[in-house]
Amino acid sequence: MIVVTRRRFVAGAVAALGALAAPRPGAAQSASAGPPDPQLLEDLVAANRILVDQGVLDGYGHVSARHDRDAGRFLMSRSLAPELVTAADVLEYGLDSEPVAAGGRTSYLERFIHGEIYRARPDVRAIVHSHSPSVIPFGVTGAPLRPLYHMSAFLAGGVPVWDIHVAAGDSDMLVRTPALGRSLAQALGARPVVLMRGHGAVVVGASLPQVVFRSVYTEVNARLQAQAIALGGGNVTYLSAEEAARAESAIAGTLGRPWELWKRKTLGR
Amino acid sequence: MIVVTRRRFVAGAVAALGALAAPRPGAAQSASAGPPDPQLLEDLVAANRILVDQGVLDGYGHVSARHDRDAGRFLMSRSLAPELVTAADVLEYGLDSEPVAAGGRTSYLERFIHGEIYRARPDVRAIVHSHSPSVIPFGVTGAPLRPLYHMSAFLAGGVPVWDIHVAAGDSDMLVRTPALGRSLAQALGARPVVLMRGHGAVVVGASLPQVVFRSVYTEVNARLQAQAIALGGGNVTYLSAEEAARAESAIAGTLGRPWELWKRKTLGR
Amino acid sequence: MIVVTRRRFVAGAVAALGALAAPRPGAAQSASAGPPDPQLLEDLVAANRILVDQGVLDGYGHVSARHDRDAGRFLMSRSLAPELVTAADVLEYGLDSEPVAAGGRTSYLERFIHGEIYRARPDVRAIVHSHSPSVIPFGVTGAPLRPLYHMSAFLAGGVPVWDIHVAAGDSDMLVRTPALGRSLAQALGARPVVLMRGHGAVVVGASLPQVVFRSVYTEVNARLQAQAIALGGGNVTYLSAEEAARAESAIAGTLGRPWELWKRKTLGR
Amino acid sequence: MIVVTRRRFVAGAVAALGALAAPRPGAAQSASAGPPDPQLLEDLVAANRILVDQGVLDGYGHVSARHDRDAGRFLMSRSLAPELVTAADVLEYGLDSEPVAAGGRTSYLERFIHGEIYRARPDVRAIVHSHSPSVIPFGVTGAPLRPLYHMSAFLAGGVPVWDIHVAAGDSDMLVRTPALGRSLAQALGARPVVLMRGHGAVVVGASLPQVVFRSVYTEVNARLQAQAIALGGGNVTYLSAEEAARAESAIAGTLGRPWELWKRKTLGR
Repeated sequence: MIVVTRRRFVAGAVAALGALAAPRPGAAQSASAGPPDPQLLEDLVAANRILVDQGVLDGYGHVSARHDRDAGRFLMSRSLAPELVTAADVLEYGLDSEPVAAGGRTSYLERFIHGEIYRARPDVRAIVHSHSPSVIPFGVTGAPLRPLYHMSAFLAGGVPVWDIHVAAGDSDMLVRTPALGRSLAQALGARPVVLMRGHGAVVVGASLPQVVFRSVYTEVNARLQAQAIALGGGNVTYLSAEEAARAESAIAGTLGRPWELWKRKTLGR
Repeated sequence: MIVVTRRRFVAGAVAALGALAAPRPGAAQSASAGPPDPQLLEDLVAANRILVDQGVLDGYGHVSARHDRDAGRFLMSRSLAPELVTAADVLEYGLDSEPVAAGGRTSYLERFIHGEIYRARPDVRAIVHSHSPSVIPFGVTGAPLRPLYHMSAFLAGGVPVWDIHVAAGDSDMLVRTPALGRSLAQALGARPVVLMRGHGAVVVGASLPQVVFRSVYTEVNARLQAQAIALGGGNVTYLSAEEAARAESAIAGTLGRPWELWKRKTLGR
Repeated sequence: MIVVTRRRFVAGAVAALGALAAPRPGAAQSASAGPPDPQLLEDLVAANRILVDQGVLDGYGHVSARHDRDAGRFLMSRSLAPELVTAADVLEYGLDSEPVAAGGRTSYLERFIHGEIYRARPDVRAIVHSHSPSVIPFGVTGAPLRPLYHMSAFLAGGVPVWDIHVAAGDSDMLVRTPALGRSLAQALGARPVVLMRGHGAVVVGASLPQVVFRSVYTEVNARLQAQAIALGGGNVTYLSAEEAARAESAIAGTLGRPWELWKRKTLGR
Repeated sequence: MIVVTRRRFVAGAVAALGALAAPRPGAAQSASAGPPDPQLLEDLVAANRILVDQGVLDGYGHVSARHDRDAGRFLMSRSLAPELVTAADVLEYGLDSEPVAAGGRTSYLERFIHGEIYRARPDVRAIVHSHSPSVIPFGVTGAPLRPLYHMSAFLAGGVPVWDIHVAAGDSDMLVRTPALGRSLAQALGARPVVLMRGHGAVVVGASLPQVVFRSVYTEVNARLQAQAIALGGGNVTYLSAEEAARAESAIAGTLGRPWELWKRKTLGR
């Protein structure tokens, strides 16, 4: 894990805020929504590093947050390995998934995942796209991902598998257009997680702590569910719908506990 | 692993002891039993960190110890990720699982696990509640956890699975009332370990070193037992009852060896 | 992971360049092609360490790069555990897999893997030989290694298993002669990966970043494919040939992202 | 991993050598063979730490070396977690597995494993007793441990499973008497590895580097063999006897490579 000192983090954040702080009134669509809440920016950088530390992301994948001043904008790093992301790398995007002011910096090819989901889901304020390893086998077999225990109760509404081949025929597997992003958002529907066949997963949440929590426990649940299926010969007791609904609500009140831990470890404090 | 220096640890401990040291003679039920043995407090902090280091706890779970001055009291951290616990976070609880003097600090929702087991089992002086990963699959399949080797001989009396649905119907899966704690304690009976369907496990012991040892080797046994069942097509030779009884007794004399190691590594000495 | 500071790295590189910089014009076959591009040398040292950090190499295995000044030469460490390799350990080899000027330093027994593949494959500029753990089971069972997801799309052309027993009868399993190297190169054909029964794998690429990327995701794919086969009862959807071709081409443009991360972590910057 | 600086290591070694250096001429059987080769002592300390770092030992297990001055003596730590062993903890033992001069320090209960094997096997100069995790399932199922690849060729002569119940009926599973040590040594015969049902393994070698190498690759082979059996539906190609004999001999010449790496990492140089 690469640890950022608080000093180095804040310096980066200030530089980034400066870059983001210059709304250009004349440029209609491309005008910045202005600097985001510094706390949100700090959490976004932390989320990138936490997800690497927890084995959800490796050199690939990305996490975004809806802008706190403008629901039509979101924040995400330029194309960079998540472990290296600092506040200075964060760009502002419109819901068309194009950067407001890239300043020559390149964007992730699959940024349309984010824009199209923010467009379709007003309740969503943070999104993770990953190649979460234990999840991959569930995307290429008929085995449905289901909640084994209370920590992953949020999976109870069903985890659809989006097959890009159904949406677009032969492709390079990447969500590189608004149309593919819309197709994926449609498969996600009102749920928190969608798998992508032969690729990975997308997890959404109402906040960065929630989307990170859900990403971590989707990975853990997938690992333990595969073990349970092998151990039980396929015979596994999952949470009932009612148990899952109640557990998800109860756990929601505790997200601050792991988040505080993860953030302290990641930011080296 | 977050390491505490001895200096920082002792400073924390002194602060905590000060907070715990003021028994209020007038307040009948809520009077503190007085400051615990500093060694016990140090071991409790170490146990939190060791269990994270050994993969038994993550951002969730808790460990407690019965108060050395009063069998009707126990010590446990306020609601906090175990890896972050210092002596200053430790609160004193009555057997009703309510803090004697929380001072505005919040308690774990599932503290009733601890109070009710201490009430039912006078021999128990330390308790761990975890989501120990390899153990989860044994709680949701019919596969019984059994001792594969001498290190986990303590499992030989059988490991019951407590299903909260049998006790309480649909729930949020949490042991959030004294009644649920009593039901769980009843399932545990006189044994050292009980699994919780769709949730985790509870391990008890006569001391912190013992409960930590048992928690670590319950996790290891679960992992190796699942591998052995796959390798042997279900055909596995476990310890006989007599072997387990003798091995448990022999191993009991060696607990100081891993405990010394774990504590030195955790406290950074 | 052993981290080299930039200062120490450069010092080592300068020493090595000095050693490599003295072409001896009189010595026909053994004349050095001259000092390689310092960037190539730095990348070769980094590749050794990255492959250990990523779990592809342990105390064994080797990585080489074709010399940038002379396609008839390649660069590889003297016989040394990859994690310990510095620029000063790098030797220049001819396509006969013999060092140009060993200066008393010993060479890897299996250097013929490299020379013979460079001879047979003009497109190849970097080669890794490993005992990549998750790959070993695919070399000793009938299960073919196939691309589960877009990151390992390069496996789509098929991954042959080279059995040294077919080539040479009873042996010590090592590619210790030019003839064995040629046999292995023939099995590899135009593909990027060949498995070696009861031994390991060879991965080739057009550059060090590409061969490292391919080695890492061959290991990851093998691990996840074995999990998927178990989970799906053998029923797994792999990338189609057309998907794989397009994905491989798309991913090719992103190799710099993990490479930048891996190199920064490995070289301690 | 706990790292010892060279300075601290040497200080410890000197203290230990002082303790071991005083042969008492009058005390027939209990006279020390004198101080061992400092290199041997350094290697013994390193072996303890390497085996922890490689996942073969945890807080339990032990490694010994035959004394270089007296084939009737061996060196082993007092009862202590292997990761904590320094030269000052090393005691000298007779072939009766009793310490020459314990000075109040306690010995491992299972020291008889060592004495009896040194007695039965003049070719053996180093012994490891472990609870090597991936090996445990092979000791409790009918599945024989066999060499999957050249690195574990030394397993080709067969890996017997010693069942203490056959030797002694109900027991505490520990090799706590000379008779049990002899029974185990008999099961080992002329081979390098014997498994102990419901307990662990013993690995022997002609030197510390060899016994460490064999211990590490016995663990790796067990892990990969279990994966291969699952992947191949039990259909696995192992090394032939002739391949194994030749590979073992070829690999023997390369042991210095991982040993140098492991020792440098462990001793922090």
